[in-house]
Amino acid sequence: MKTKAIFYHAGCPVCVDAEQGLANSLDQEKYEVEMVHLGEQSGRIGEAESSGVQSVPALVIGDNTYHINFGAAINDLK
Amino acid sequence: MKTKAIFYHAGCPVCVDAEQGLANSLDQEKYEVEMVHLGEQSGRIGEAESSGVQSVPALVIGDNTYHINFGAAINDLK
Repeated sequence: MKTKAIFYHAGCPVCVDAEQGLANSLDQEKYEVEMVHLGEQSGRIGEAESSGVQSVPALVIGDNTYHINFGAAINDLK
Repeated sequence: MKTKAIFYHAGCPVCVDAEQGLANSLDQEKYEVEMVHLGEQSGRIGEAESSGVQSVPALVIGDNTYHINFGAAINDLK
């Protein structure tokens, strides 16, 4: 079974770069990667915060949350 | 040909977590991942800085540099 990974972003340049260069580089055989644009799907901000996401872009893999560089604070997306 | 990726770390807990959860999750068919401990291989700090690494853990994939969470500033490893 694949491990679930969620890439949270807000369409910012730093986000797009991380999506193309890092999120898309994960092993697709092992990880099922979902891309979530928190600017367009604000209903999922709570879920992201519950996973410990404080800024975007961020990648949640299983129980681990990785903030990748810095595009925008999650509070600024509310 | 595989794309070269370098994971710079310093053995810190945040670094180990990022190595196990993220660096090891890259597609091994597409990326050749080298792990560099800058605390033990301080001769490579200059190379890391040239790639834009300001803190560890960081992952350099091709021309892109991704700081992953924050473990230690590179200046503190000198």
